Amino acid sequence: MNNEELLKEVSELIEQKESDKLKEILHDLHPADIAELCNELDAEEARSVYLLLDNETAADVLIEMDEDARKRFLEILPSETIAKRFVDYMDSDDAVDIIREMDEDKQEEVLSHIEDIEQAGDIVDLLKYDEDTAGGLMGTEMVIVNENWSMPECLREMRIQAEEMDEIYYVYVVDDDERLRGVFPLKKMITSPSVSKVKHVMKKDPISVHVDTPIEEVVQTIEKYDLVAVPVVDSIGRLVGRITVDDVMDEVREQAERDYQLASGLSQDVESDDNVFRQTTARLPWLLIGMLGGIGNSMILGNFDSTFAAHPEMALYIPLIGGTGGNVGTQSSALVVQGLANSSLNAENTIKQILKESVVALINATIISMLVYTYNFIRFGAHATVSYSVSISLFAVVMFASIFGTLVPLTLEKLKIDPAIATGPFISITNDIIGMLMYMGITVLLS
Amino acid sequence: MNNEELLKEVSELIEQKESDKLKEILHDLHPADIAELCNELDAEEARSVYLLLDNETAADVLIEMDEDARKRFLEILPSETIAKRFVDYMDSDDAVDIIREMDEDKQEEVLSHIEDIEQAGDIVDLLKYDEDTAGGLMGTEMVIVNENWSMPECLREMRIQAEEMDEIYYVYVVDDDERLRGVFPLKKMITSPSVSKVKHVMKKDPISVHVDTPIEEVVQTIEKYDLVAVPVVDSIGRLVGRITVDDVMDEVREQAERDYQLASGLSQDVESDDNVFRQTTARLPWLLIGMLGGIGNSMILGNFDSTFAAHPEMALYIPLIGGTGGNVGTQSSALVVQGLANSSLNAENTIKQILKESVVALINATIISMLVYTYNFIRFGAHATVSYSVSISLFAVVMFASIFGTLVPLTLEKLKIDPAIATGPFISITNDIIGMLMYMGITVLLS
Repeated sequence: MNNEELLKEVSELIEQKESDKLKEILHDLHPADIAELCNELDAEEARSVYLLLDNETAADVLIEMDEDARKRFLEILPSETIAKRFVDYMDSDDAVDIIREMDEDKQEEVLSHIEDIEQAGDIVDLLKYDEDTAGGLMGTEMVIVNENWSMPECLREMRIQAEEMDEIYYVYVVDDDERLRGVFPLKKMITSPSVSKVKHVMKKDPISVHVDTPIEEVVQTIEKYDLVAVPVVDSIGRLVGRITVDDVMDEVREQAERDYQLASGLSQDVESDDNVFRQTTARLPWLLIGMLGGIGNSMILGNFDSTFAAHPEMALYIPLIGGTGGNVGTQSSALVVQGLANSSLNAENTIKQILKESVVALINATIISMLVYTYNFIRFGAHATVSYSVSISLFAVVMFASIFGTLVPLTLEKLKIDPAIATGPFISITNDIIGMLMYMGITVLLS
Repeated sequence: MNNEELLKEVSELIEQKESDKLKEILHDLHPADIAELCNELDAEEARSVYLLLDNETAADVLIEMDEDARKRFLEILPSETIAKRFVDYMDSDDAVDIIREMDEDKQEEVLSHIEDIEQAGDIVDLLKYDEDTAGGLMGTEMVIVNENWSMPECLREMRIQAEEMDEIYYVYVVDDDERLRGVFPLKKMITSPSVSKVKHVMKKDPISVHVDTPIEEVVQTIEKYDLVAVPVVDSIGRLVGRITVDDVMDEVREQAERDYQLASGLSQDVESDDNVFRQTTARLPWLLIGMLGGIGNSMILGNFDSTFAAHPEMALYIPLIGGTGGNVGTQSSALVVQGLANSSLNAENTIKQILKESVVALINATIISMLVYTYNFIRFGAHATVSYSVSISLFAVVMFASIFGTLVPLTLEKLKIDPAIATGPFISITNDIIGMLMYMGITVLLS
């Protein structure tokens, strides 16, 4: 049964109020699959589905739903239901994600209805952290043991702590002051002799991140060291949470998608299945900026009537020069943004990067302008001004666009502005205008 | 100590042959950090570093190195050393990755020197799978138990199997015919009562992938179900391997980077720290195609001399119309490619997507052409042909570029060609040319 058929069947069963049959179908599905189903249902239908799920599953499904569909669904539910049917059964990091999506009044209401006081306290603490830091991404569910315990003591404690957790991969070891001292994979619980003390089994000085570490660095840490989870410590080294790889993987995709979207002239997070209004508002801003750039270009070119009158063939090369500037600038800026994103490039090395870029630009500029000169030589003959001015302009445009496309994102990075905004339309529009200015200037000089 | 300083110190110690001091420094570093160091060293220096590492660490470091640096390093080593010092100590999936990078003769030589016959056999089997499928990404290191065993039996067996493995997260359960029947997280080993049989503890019908499943689907499965590893089965359901989340995360990043690079007009995988030759060869192809597009445009425009002679102001709007077509097409194609990559869009829904895109395009086209008309009305007065033809052309270009930008990647996807090649330069060059044709056509019709 494919997704469409399943969706149709579920919708029909909801309409016919066939709860038993529906329950049977839902029982065989993974929460992530039920979530996909609920994304497609309207809020009231989704409510009918949720009523048939046990609390654990309902919480899992809610976490897996699309943000938009989840918002619509949560809007029709009273705060008490959200707290008692969902938040009470979630990991603290998931609960925080969902509570962050609500407005402040609703947040307060939901928090006041959480029955598990410890959970409520954890959520309130986690909400204080900036969303873009390790503190904003971490959860508090983890197995923590003391370094002085023996392995059997540790095992006993772990059994109690693990009761409420879905999956556990690492055991974190702290000293008497709750400072992180070590970590060991769960496997060691099984393979280590029971006479050992925890401190002799654990790996000392484990890789950890600080609560204030930016998410991008957390992602890099988990990727670099191939971790499944990373512990989070506060400023005096106390263990305060852990971040799991599934949350980090979402971040990797979101970060890559965001850079790609900015490079493609989309001004906000938007998907092909978003509605028409959202798509238009994501796309129109850059199109309008492009339009202003185009009008600006028409004003610049308007000042050179006499040039066009003397050499009407000059107009023919406007698309070539504008397009080449745009293409070169897009390449240069994409390389820088990607290099910064995966840390193969450091904003401190600006001068080195610009020098290297200049060499690449020099090669590309020479090849392109020579080829175009050859073409124009054949088309217009040896002494046509257009042949010189087009090739010299192309050369200048490629050099400028390369260096500009490298310099701008590196400068933005230094100013702590997302360098990805300098890719795509911004760079191609700027290069288009500056390319026209150069073309006209060089033509006037040569005539 | 930052990376630059560390690199400098290590280089000096290598030169002075201060093995003891060097060993001390290396001992405190994680294999991933040693790998970063080796990426920056030349092959001979890297060899001096490797000589000081124990076998396990040396293998880990080699896996974490950049592909280019690793290739340079392995080229100076005899096949026997590669086999006995590295491959023997690696997980089978990592060994396969590294052997795949060699030419066939070297592959054979390395394989013949592997001492662990079972490991060699696994590697030979794994090499048969297509690199872009689950079989090509999986490894064979996993804990496998029989469904009929008791938990203590299972624990005993696990201790033996786990000896050689770094980390274990799931225990896979098979029947007497080696078919995958269930899975349970390692935690259950500790929390489940010892009287239970494995089959009562395991989760039945676990999520798995087939050896032939394309990597993109494997990635989606792991992301959707938040797994740390996924089992791989053959065509009759036998458990043959497992894929871990760290390998999948690399895939997510590589896939996103590849789409972004194609959208930015880079024809091959390239990084900002690659050398000048590699950068030039990655960038020049699209620039040359853009150049041909620009020359094509100059030929098209050359046929309309008389139009430009009658309305010289027409030339001023060439950048506006070309640029807008490029911007719109880039947006549309990026949305489709991204939708296909994260499965929010299905190539089967082509007609629905085109209809929706048309509505968005209609709104954007109307707003932009009205605004430009207003501007031209003020600049040239009510009856100027240019005002009409520019706005009508803009409208046509936005509509065409939107639909074309949606249709092309969807069609490529259906033809099993990577739709990402239709983003970036391809779409902007095509739209530029068709935009000029439309502009000239509409102008001629209106004059």
